Amino acid sequence: MILRVDSLQTALPPPSDPDPAGASAVQELLGGKFGEMSTWLNYTFQSFNFRSRQGARPYYDLLCSIATEEFGHVELVSTTVNTMLTGASPIDDGRAPAASLAGVKGIGNPHHFIAGGQGALPQNSQGRPWNGDYVFSSGDLVEDLTHNFFLETGARNNKLKVYEMVEHPAARALTGYLLVRGGVHQVAYARALERLTGADLMKLFPAPRIPTDKIPECKPHIKAGEHLKLYRFSEKDFTESGAVFNGPHPETGEDLFVAEEPHPEGAPAHDLPPQPAVFAPSFAPEEIVEIANKLRDKAGLPKRPAGNVA
Amino acid sequence: MILRVDSLQTALPPPSDPDPAGASAVQELLGGKFGEMSTWLNYTFQSFNFRSRQGARPYYDLLCSIATEEFGHVELVSTTVNTMLTGASPIDDGRAPAASLAGVKGIGNPHHFIAGGQGALPQNSQGRPWNGDYVFSSGDLVEDLTHNFFLETGARNNKLKVYEMVEHPAARALTGYLLVRGGVHQVAYARALERLTGADLMKLFPAPRIPTDKIPECKPHIKAGEHLKLYRFSEKDFTESGAVFNGPHPETGEDLFVAEEPHPEGAPAHDLPPQPAVFAPSFAPEEIVEIANKLRDKAGLPKRPAGNVA
Amino acid sequence: MILRVDSLQTALPPPSDPDPAGASAVQELLGGKFGEMSTWLNYTFQSFNFRSRQGARPYYDLLCSIATEEFGHVELVSTTVNTMLTGASPIDDGRAPAASLAGVKGIGNPHHFIAGGQGALPQNSQGRPWNGDYVFSSGDLVEDLTHNFFLETGARNNKLKVYEMVEHPAARALTGYLLVRGGVHQVAYARALERLTGADLMKLFPAPRIPTDKIPECKPHIKAGEHLKLYRFSEKDFTESGAVFNGPHPETGEDLFVAEEPHPEGAPAHDLPPQPAVFAPSFAPEEIVEIANKLRDKAGLPKRPAGNVA
Amino acid sequence: MILRVDSLQTALPPPSDPDPAGASAVQELLGGKFGEMSTWLNYTFQSFNFRSRQGARPYYDLLCSIATEEFGHVELVSTTVNTMLTGASPIDDGRAPAASLAGVKGIGNPHHFIAGGQGALPQNSQGRPWNGDYVFSSGDLVEDLTHNFFLETGARNNKLKVYEMVEHPAARALTGYLLVRGGVHQVAYARALERLTGADLMKLFPAPRIPTDKIPECKPHIKAGEHLKLYRFSEKDFTESGAVFNGPHPETGEDLFVAEEPHPEGAPAHDLPPQPAVFAPSFAPEEIVEIANKLRDKAGLPKRPAGNVA
Amino acid sequence: MILRVDSLQTALPPPSDPDPAGASAVQELLGGKFGEMSTWLNYTFQSFNFRSRQGARPYYDLLCSIATEEFGHVELVSTTVNTMLTGASPIDDGRAPAASLAGVKGIGNPHHFIAGGQGALPQNSQGRPWNGDYVFSSGDLVEDLTHNFFLETGARNNKLKVYEMVEHPAARALTGYLLVRGGVHQVAYARALERLTGADLMKLFPAPRIPTDKIPECKPHIKAGEHLKLYRFSEKDFTESGAVFNGPHPETGEDLFVAEEPHPEGAPAHDLPPQPAVFAPSFAPEEIVEIANKLRDKAGLPKRPAGNVA
Amino acid sequence: MILRVDSLQTALPPPSDPDPAGASAVQELLGGKFGEMSTWLNYTFQSFNFRSRQGARPYYDLLCSIATEEFGHVELVSTTVNTMLTGASPIDDGRAPAASLAGVKGIGNPHHFIAGGQGALPQNSQGRPWNGDYVFSSGDLVEDLTHNFFLETGARNNKLKVYEMVEHPAARALTGYLLVRGGVHQVAYARALERLTGADLMKLFPAPRIPTDKIPECKPHIKAGEHLKLYRFSEKDFTESGAVFNGPHPETGEDLFVAEEPHPEGAPAHDLPPQPAVFAPSFAPEEIVEIANKLRDKAGLPKRPAGNVA
Repeated sequence: MILRVDSLQTALPPPSDPDPAGASAVQELLGGKFGEMSTWLNYTFQSFNFRSRQGARPYYDLLCSIATEEFGHVELVSTTVNTMLTGASPIDDGRAPAASLAGVKGIGNPHHFIAGGQGALPQNSQGRPWNGDYVFSSGDLVEDLTHNFFLETGARNNKLKVYEMVEHPAARALTGYLLVRGGVHQVAYARALERLTGADLMKLFPAPRIPTDKIPECKPHIKAGEHLKLYRFSEKDFTESGAVFNGPHPETGEDLFVAEEPHPEGAPAHDLPPQPAVFAPSFAPEEIVEIANKLRDKAGLPKRPAGNVA
Repeated sequence: MILRVDSLQTALPPPSDPDPAGASAVQELLGGKFGEMSTWLNYTFQSFNFRSRQGARPYYDLLCSIATEEFGHVELVSTTVNTMLTGASPIDDGRAPAASLAGVKGIGNPHHFIAGGQGALPQNSQGRPWNGDYVFSSGDLVEDLTHNFFLETGARNNKLKVYEMVEHPAARALTGYLLVRGGVHQVAYARALERLTGADLMKLFPAPRIPTDKIPECKPHIKAGEHLKLYRFSEKDFTESGAVFNGPHPETGEDLFVAEEPHPEGAPAHDLPPQPAVFAPSFAPEEIVEIANKLRDKAGLPKRPAGNVA
Repeated sequence: MILRVDSLQTALPPPSDPDPAGASAVQELLGGKFGEMSTWLNYTFQSFNFRSRQGARPYYDLLCSIATEEFGHVELVSTTVNTMLTGASPIDDGRAPAASLAGVKGIGNPHHFIAGGQGALPQNSQGRPWNGDYVFSSGDLVEDLTHNFFLETGARNNKLKVYEMVEHPAARALTGYLLVRGGVHQVAYARALERLTGADLMKLFPAPRIPTDKIPECKPHIKAGEHLKLYRFSEKDFTESGAVFNGPHPETGEDLFVAEEPHPEGAPAHDLPPQPAVFAPSFAPEEIVEIANKLRDKAGLPKRPAGNVA
Repeated sequence: MILRVDSLQTALPPPSDPDPAGASAVQELLGGKFGEMSTWLNYTFQSFNFRSRQGARPYYDLLCSIATEEFGHVELVSTTVNTMLTGASPIDDGRAPAASLAGVKGIGNPHHFIAGGQGALPQNSQGRPWNGDYVFSSGDLVEDLTHNFFLETGARNNKLKVYEMVEHPAARALTGYLLVRGGVHQVAYARALERLTGADLMKLFPAPRIPTDKIPECKPHIKAGEHLKLYRFSEKDFTESGAVFNGPHPETGEDLFVAEEPHPEGAPAHDLPPQPAVFAPSFAPEEIVEIANKLRDKAGLPKRPAGNVA
Repeated sequence: MILRVDSLQTALPPPSDPDPAGASAVQELLGGKFGEMSTWLNYTFQSFNFRSRQGARPYYDLLCSIATEEFGHVELVSTTVNTMLTGASPIDDGRAPAASLAGVKGIGNPHHFIAGGQGALPQNSQGRPWNGDYVFSSGDLVEDLTHNFFLETGARNNKLKVYEMVEHPAARALTGYLLVRGGVHQVAYARALERLTGADLMKLFPAPRIPTDKIPECKPHIKAGEHLKLYRFSEKDFTESGAVFNGPHPETGEDLFVAEEPHPEGAPAHDLPPQPAVFAPSFAPEEIVEIANKLRDKAGLPKRPAGNVA
Repeated sequence: MILRVDSLQTALPPPSDPDPAGASAVQELLGGKFGEMSTWLNYTFQSFNFRSRQGARPYYDLLCSIATEEFGHVELVSTTVNTMLTGASPIDDGRAPAASLAGVKGIGNPHHFIAGGQGALPQNSQGRPWNGDYVFSSGDLVEDLTHNFFLETGARNNKLKVYEMVEHPAARALTGYLLVRGGVHQVAYARALERLTGADLMKLFPAPRIPTDKIPECKPHIKAGEHLKLYRFSEKDFTESGAVFNGPHPETGEDLFVAEEPHPEGAPAHDLPPQPAVFAPSFAPEEIVEIANKLRDKAGLPKRPAGNVA
């Protein structure tokens, strides 16, 4: 089972100029074949299906920790998409009946506006839904690790491409962080294969062949050492992955290690404003707030919501 | 972000007689339109896309807590499928080259054996992959809650049908638990709508019109009060849902409440044995164990793995 | 727009021995690429998209009349599936909680029981959903007619195969009727092409190369002349198709003609009994009846329902 | 079975400035998950699969009447798409070989031009085909009605969004009408649930929370009382739905009722002109007309086609 | 089995101004329902599944020869897409980290850049993947030929539309060639049906009703007689198709014949330059070349690569 | 472009006892994610999209040669499926109208009988169609090779599983051959990566961890040295792959090499008999033969067909 923490793994900027075409491209990192839903659900299913867990405990622990981190990546991409879509319909006078969505006709993914409330979708950059065929879970440990290394390589490719295509500050902050943390996973699976078989995949790094530290938005995270450590993403469990995740980083030679703290400190999300033109959270959002306040009062909650927002 | 606990939300029985045809049916509760992947990912995406969180905090918290519980349901269904498939290929002398899968030719979902390692898949009872079109996230709070109530109703239907179709002990333990906990979610969304709009959906219970307490495998969970409480599924966050989740249970009249403990105590999973005929975790599983033991030794870990298994 | 008549186009037998595996095969005629949903929706979309209707009126009228008949074919296949599934779960003591669906585990399409209420689905014989890619509507009249002739040829093939595979009386009654009426459509499109271009497709009949009158269940319909006439399926409209649909039948030499009556007399459907194990129409169907009776009373309706059933 | 009337349920404007990007958006109302194909086919399949029809006759009749109306909605959306695409390729000199489609490269749905003849497709606003997974037909009456209420709510959302996005006169006329008539269906299913279970859903209206009478294009239909009445859409059948469809409208308090006339008077469609650049109905449309005229002469039909066009 | 020749079937122009929106449209001819993957794989599967080959040898040979030619058509469309995408990202200074793909955000198929390396994909003009439902292989020779004639008719429609939409020189060269050679296949299947059944389909030509010789880019190929001959596409086999493929061409009256040479002379492809912004073949393409040169040296190969390029 | 040779790459046994359930499982090797259509089309698209061919010629040549061999593998799997289905419907008296398919109701893939003529389909073992999302063609050489190694690993897994599940002689002959030849491709891609980057993947062999020479049906091919050589599959082209494909085989230590002969000698296919119950090639196959003979006579062909059959 899992527990949720009401924080993002890293800080993302607040809404600025909306960029629906860019948000449509960023969706590839969410619902694409190599998007974060894929990394998340591949490793999650592999962990559910892991046989002989005690016999191969360090591998099981590694898989579980990485799987759990990926949820946070899905959350980050979703938040980025939402940030980029904020303001794409007029907020003040954008309420129907009007042509408040006329400005986005023919731009980006129409489901961002028609099906959703200017929010993220489990779709790729073409508007096609993520599907379960993107999950590989053979149960054969060597194969699953081989797959996972390949998957991370494809994911790194897509992150770099989206970086090049979308200049929106949220997209750049996102890809800067994901490239560093995805890089850790790419190394982790290669090292896991090495430890299991003796094969040496380290010369495949970096793949694609552009070093991560050339990306300006990656540098602060590298400086903070985020490219070297694996978080357990558990208060108490999954303590043995260090038996596999160790040795030199293939690009920098620094030592890989498992962090003592269970997870990165993280940062609260921005409380994204209503978009009444798409009824999110309502055509009349102020009514929702009023009702919620009454319910909170009645329940004896303090006036200020307990939530964690930027 | 999330943290993972290496336990199931409830205990499931160990492998007994394999039932691949039954496992194929149970997949509907995993990757079907109304399966646990759907409830999980619907509420998760809705939570990512929630605008005006502070303004509608009790609703956001309710959604996040339920979403987080659903991960555990996906884990339970996956574990059930794995349990039911264990032993479906011969374990001792079942290694290729032989006809060790001849006994399951034409039975159940062929991907359980050919694509997977006698493990769960993100597919439904027909072998079709789960896909993102099953996610509804309009951003409109009234609509999303209406959807969620409907989704839980469809999910309850499917759980009852699988209960009737599959007599394997793991499937019965699973559906007994899910019917009780899914029932809490069905009530939660109906009550949330009631609190938001004044509409009264309580007379729609039970839907389908068979009371949960008629199912023998539900009774122990009802006796333990699991039909009345919402867990926050967070150490510290999501503390306001009690402003919405309260009042009488529509079937029993007892008071609904938010649990003080963050999550159910849970139970460790069984360490399911290797199935060498399908190379899970290897054609020669003993080699994996030997390598893992060496790595554990080298890392200074104790002889006995730290993992949490039944 | 359309009006509905509460009758089937031909009589179908009442439920007898259930045949879920056969019902799964019959689904090909409903939701398969060449099933009745395809013929129905192909011609319907072509009729919506028909440009220069007045200029090519006889063609437009022909298309509309055939499209409208196809709805009735979809209804007939659905009714057949429902008839074949009736009784597949125990009726008297089949109510959950029990193993009332254990007898159909691994047999036929699991969605007939888990997703549906022992009812027809828009799926093919493999359980895959019908989809819009099966519709061809180029707007080019010669091409659309060429397509339609091919579609009817593929449909005839599938009907013959299902006839050979499924011996259930309802399936045989269904295919016997559909082969005759589908044959009229196959001829109609070939003749329409002939009238438009001068090409002679008549020697392509029969395709596949088994004459319809060799099928025993077709004979009564042929004897009744159903292989020769086109119904307008409209009280007043679509009166010009006779300008195209005329001349000799390619197999019998008899004259083709447009019927004076708007539609076949038809026959009422059987009122298929509840299947409480799958909650159709409820776990406790007698309650539905009781409520309905009260509503009918209150509305001043006579005791005996006005409906048209066999 | 059904009969077809060669009229639209309401008048739509003739072609004006083409709007292929808008037509692409309008497709959501046709082939989207909440489009008219979905409402149509959901209710149609539910009606085919309805068990115990006599016992629950008012519900069966309600379902059949609404299902039958939905065909007309599909026809209206298709006609709107066709109207908006008319003129998007040059008509006079637009015949190949030329670059007559160069002006629409990269605009809207490419299948409108490449696959189709500037005509409607069973696809959504992203160009993805409608599919049978959008149909819910559980056979459980309470569940099916719950679904239908939700489906109509989602459909209303999408209609409002398309209204806001597309200002083309045909799109506005379309959505104005559909919002009113779809609103009747939304109420009908909520009331049907209320009558069956006692649950009160009326406070969920309007959902989304913008009253229909704020939409200028809805007002004439409201003034004509179209928001209050259910048509039977049958000459003689489906006479009992008034036992369910009655009581006050949730927004206006006026009485709901079943119309005496079987269907709205309707209006003829415009005879949309050929688009020779896409070969609709031909590269040389005048040849088709010439042939049709000869066939009509030969058949003794009057010079003026009998068809019903605006 | 097959052998490959490192040449295109006809010459295509070198890269000029990139046209990503046009490349997206051209994809319909590759991965669309009527694209070259469909013609290729339909005939290939039909040839694999051909029963009684010796008994119907001329038909088998015809099918195999056409199937084999279609591979070359897929190659031509792919090459065209690649040519049109070349230069769409900056080549000299386009390497990441930069915004080298910002210029194509929102233009064409995003997978051309994010998933691929500015290269062709098995997708249609909407970015949807080709799938096996597009293959028809009934095994019934009359039906398969009827289908193939229809398929070629739809394919000709799509080629003409793409011709009209895309003015890029590579697209025009492509469609000019494909219209002529696809026209041969369209005639071949019609004639094959004629020889098998006596039906006369010749008056269906041309379909769509625009003669091929009106297309300027077709004229050189017609002048070279490419509209009349069938190539065997085999050094030694498939020698009997002339028993079926003969008689007059339906549009010109000239004699159809089987070429003596096994295949057209063809032309080498251009060696398309690297696109480092998308890592094709690498972020640092010069390193690949350096490595390849070393490997070639070590293997004793001459300095100049043996390859066949324009 | 390609040329076709009317031979299989290896001999397959003639039809024996039909095995439709086994044929359904074998389909995974045809249309599954890791089936031969996937290997074939992945490498083929990668070859079409290869930029800087001259600069990286040995890699291009390697890719083209392997791609071309894969066509032959698709042909072999298709032939195996056809062989296994032969006889599944009665041949002598199996003609409709009869229940000649009743014996296969509910067994295997229904499309083998209803949609096809007891022939292979582009579908997997679940009856789902192959689709273009299974193709990976990033253009980045390191990534594409990484993918291809992974793909071959997954393919080897599936071949081993099908071997274990299906004992039919044709399936065993097929998998015995494919395991050996697929093994060459698996090695080739690993070695290509090694030569390009210096990474050493050889210790990953065998994956899955069962040596190929333990499979009895592989032994004759290993004895013939088929596990060591790469065929160019071209009369004259693709001559440089030996610069990459060389060095020791990872399991046996023997030298890898490029064969001098362009392709294996191969073996003719059996001329599979008609299956009149499914109209392949006709309900009355003798008529087809008679017509073909007349056409052959008229064309002056010798009495005995020129074809190449076993």
